[in-house]
Amino acid sequence: MAAYDVIVIGGGPAGEVVAGRTGEAGLSVAIVERELVGGECSYYACMPSKALLRPGDLSDEIARVPGVSGGELDVAAILRRRDEVIHNRDDSAQLPWLEKRGVALLRGAARLTGERRVTVGDEEHEARRAVVLATGSDARIPPIPGLAEAKPWTNREGTNSATVPGSLVVLGGGVVGVELADAWASLGSKVTLLEAADRVIPGEEPEASALVKDGLKRRGVDVRTGVKAVGIRRENGEVTVDCEGGPNTTAEEILVGLGRAPRTTGLGVETVGLEPGAYVEVDEDMRSRAADWLFAVGDVNGRALLTHMGKEQARIAADAIVGRDHGPVAVDGRQSPRVVFTDPQVAAVGHTLASARDAGLNVRAVDHQPGSVAGGSFVGRGADSLARLVVDEDRRVVVGATFVGPEVSEFVHAATIAVVAEVPLERLWHAVPAFPTRSEVWLRLLEHYGL
Amino acid sequence: MAAYDVIVIGGGPAGEVVAGRTGEAGLSVAIVERELVGGECSYYACMPSKALLRPGDLSDEIARVPGVSGGELDVAAILRRRDEVIHNRDDSAQLPWLEKRGVALLRGAARLTGERRVTVGDEEHEARRAVVLATGSDARIPPIPGLAEAKPWTNREGTNSATVPGSLVVLGGGVVGVELADAWASLGSKVTLLEAADRVIPGEEPEASALVKDGLKRRGVDVRTGVKAVGIRRENGEVTVDCEGGPNTTAEEILVGLGRAPRTTGLGVETVGLEPGAYVEVDEDMRSRAADWLFAVGDVNGRALLTHMGKEQARIAADAIVGRDHGPVAVDGRQSPRVVFTDPQVAAVGHTLASARDAGLNVRAVDHQPGSVAGGSFVGRGADSLARLVVDEDRRVVVGATFVGPEVSEFVHAATIAVVAEVPLERLWHAVPAFPTRSEVWLRLLEHYGL
Repeated sequence: MAAYDVIVIGGGPAGEVVAGRTGEAGLSVAIVERELVGGECSYYACMPSKALLRPGDLSDEIARVPGVSGGELDVAAILRRRDEVIHNRDDSAQLPWLEKRGVALLRGAARLTGERRVTVGDEEHEARRAVVLATGSDARIPPIPGLAEAKPWTNREGTNSATVPGSLVVLGGGVVGVELADAWASLGSKVTLLEAADRVIPGEEPEASALVKDGLKRRGVDVRTGVKAVGIRRENGEVTVDCEGGPNTTAEEILVGLGRAPRTTGLGVETVGLEPGAYVEVDEDMRSRAADWLFAVGDVNGRALLTHMGKEQARIAADAIVGRDHGPVAVDGRQSPRVVFTDPQVAAVGHTLASARDAGLNVRAVDHQPGSVAGGSFVGRGADSLARLVVDEDRRVVVGATFVGPEVSEFVHAATIAVVAEVPLERLWHAVPAFPTRSEVWLRLLEHYGL
Repeated sequence: MAAYDVIVIGGGPAGEVVAGRTGEAGLSVAIVERELVGGECSYYACMPSKALLRPGDLSDEIARVPGVSGGELDVAAILRRRDEVIHNRDDSAQLPWLEKRGVALLRGAARLTGERRVTVGDEEHEARRAVVLATGSDARIPPIPGLAEAKPWTNREGTNSATVPGSLVVLGGGVVGVELADAWASLGSKVTLLEAADRVIPGEEPEASALVKDGLKRRGVDVRTGVKAVGIRRENGEVTVDCEGGPNTTAEEILVGLGRAPRTTGLGVETVGLEPGAYVEVDEDMRSRAADWLFAVGDVNGRALLTHMGKEQARIAADAIVGRDHGPVAVDGRQSPRVVFTDPQVAAVGHTLASARDAGLNVRAVDHQPGSVAGGSFVGRGADSLARLVVDEDRRVVVGATFVGPEVSEFVHAATIAVVAEVPLERLWHAVPAFPTRSEVWLRLLEHYGL
């Protein structure tokens, strides 16, 4: 039986970070991975989806800037670049990072087999200090009659397909749904998007939903909100979706973007009293409530299903394991920073106006268009856009911000700093945005507020 | 004699803001403009230069993103768009903004003619409360033999030319020089840039200078540092520059980017004891030291020759005139936020490592490449880049930041908030950048620091 200070189960971004950070602190660490080191994000989610989205995004921008020709997409070249970004699903490029930090890699499926015991294949290992679950999540396949049998695309096929389907129906207008609808439509697929709620990305500001919907329509996506899939049939090489709230629809392929399910089955979590198939509840140190030696980071704990938040949780867990103070998690859950890479993009942090009111905060929203400031004349000219700050009137600090527009993904970090550091409005007022950048929208927002 | 509470001399961005803000506060305000309302920035500087630069920038990005065709520039369309951005030098679009705020526009040249007296043409006006100088600056034409006689382009012709010169020699590798060298080279001119110092944009980090120089060379600009123009001759339709430190050079046109000179001649400043041709020294309220009723904002006070800082000073002066507390100017002078819109762009705020050390601060610099984080795979792929934080080790706050790379202009506002709000590193650490954005460079920088 080999022994390590820390055994991390799952080699995705969160698992890698907790292993690397505890390894750097001098602990002996093993990471167990049954598929590819780098995880869902690197091969089947964030990375390939952005590789598919960026060319369409750039093409849109070319159309908006007078005097620059081109913008036609070469689908084969884009798919090749996507394959390059995912290293053709070969994880060898990820290994030196772990090696450099002294992390042992155990390939295989792991299961908990006792207190601080992890079995990989036939071999049991001891974790002297901690076991960290970082197994991530799978696409949730809800019990819609016929859905599982229709072998739907999940994020995996939806990001890794070697060909562009002639037509595609997307179930769900959350982040996965809108991003992949945008991507495949930009590559020439005839896409229909079905969302049961009355708007896409329903967790974001309603105005953001409307702008993303408009963008999808410009891309040629048939966006149907208030429409629910109730039955699926695949026959004669086509998938038909029976709908409530709208007409049935048929396509070559179907993609399911209806949420995630934690990977906690077959892991032996029942040996510590946890329920297989459920999220692993954790405290502020990312320690499970089941056992003080068991931690859970990333999607599997259900707090915030975002790669960057999984990595943040991993740093926090690592510090807790090492015995270093990590300070409080500043934003978490639905309030985490988040970016939707459609065109227009949505970049947000903290509360929406509605979530702030639901939380009982005394808030006011101020709006402006980043595209309407001087800097908007050069980037994303003429495109609809929105910037919203949600201000806590009692504390005079920003508790939420949403930016919508072409290439606003880098806008959110300024707001994240403002929200996390609780910078008083009067100080933000003297953080002067450079002219002529679109960041001048900050000035307009604070002027509208009354400064 | 007409009387106003406030008379603002100069209708550029700084003048407009001080007039608008005092007008909004209920004061009676007149603004005097001898040329175009909107000022140098709107017609002859920031705005048209960005209109000329953006297409080349976008074309470079197209070349870096596989699968997107095109990127050829249509010079005529770009010049048309430039003309649209500067409203064909017609300022009527600027007037409703002033009207809405009740600001009277007096067209003509103004001069001080006594205590709180401003004469425009033949008419003298009284300023009951304040006179604000916002006259801006002109390109400085240093006494290089033959330079003035050669009728060099300044920022005016350099941004407004209706044709692309076959060849152009640019004197000075400051912001004006590098931006306009980049712009005209992207439009097909054969550009030579002469800079007497050993690097371009010498006020920025040396690594930023090197990356901008590399970018200019890729654009085809012949960048010659350590070379000083000592004599200029225009003959037979060509300009020859005699040089020290390098060979002489010849071009169709010559552009001078050798600093600015305040517009304080012919203004009657001698009536209040100020020296014509010198900057107007001001205190923290932007009040001149010459008279308590005389303010100066924007380039004319010499504090920070940047449009956004002129507007910040205008807000401060307006608050002082109105009698409202404005709080301290947070960053100023050389430490102001600043963006150089070359490709790569440079976006910086606060100290460079050298300026911090010169100021006696106990600082450490940490570096990383924004292009090397996951988000760099999609934007500006493969391009050289730099992010540097300058950390005050005694106070554990960021006192300077520099970002260099493709389209990093919107990166600086996050750093400006961090610097202005003096956010402790331990808080910045929990401001999680979204994956996969290039803002993740913040995480790497703070990790390198030791968090």
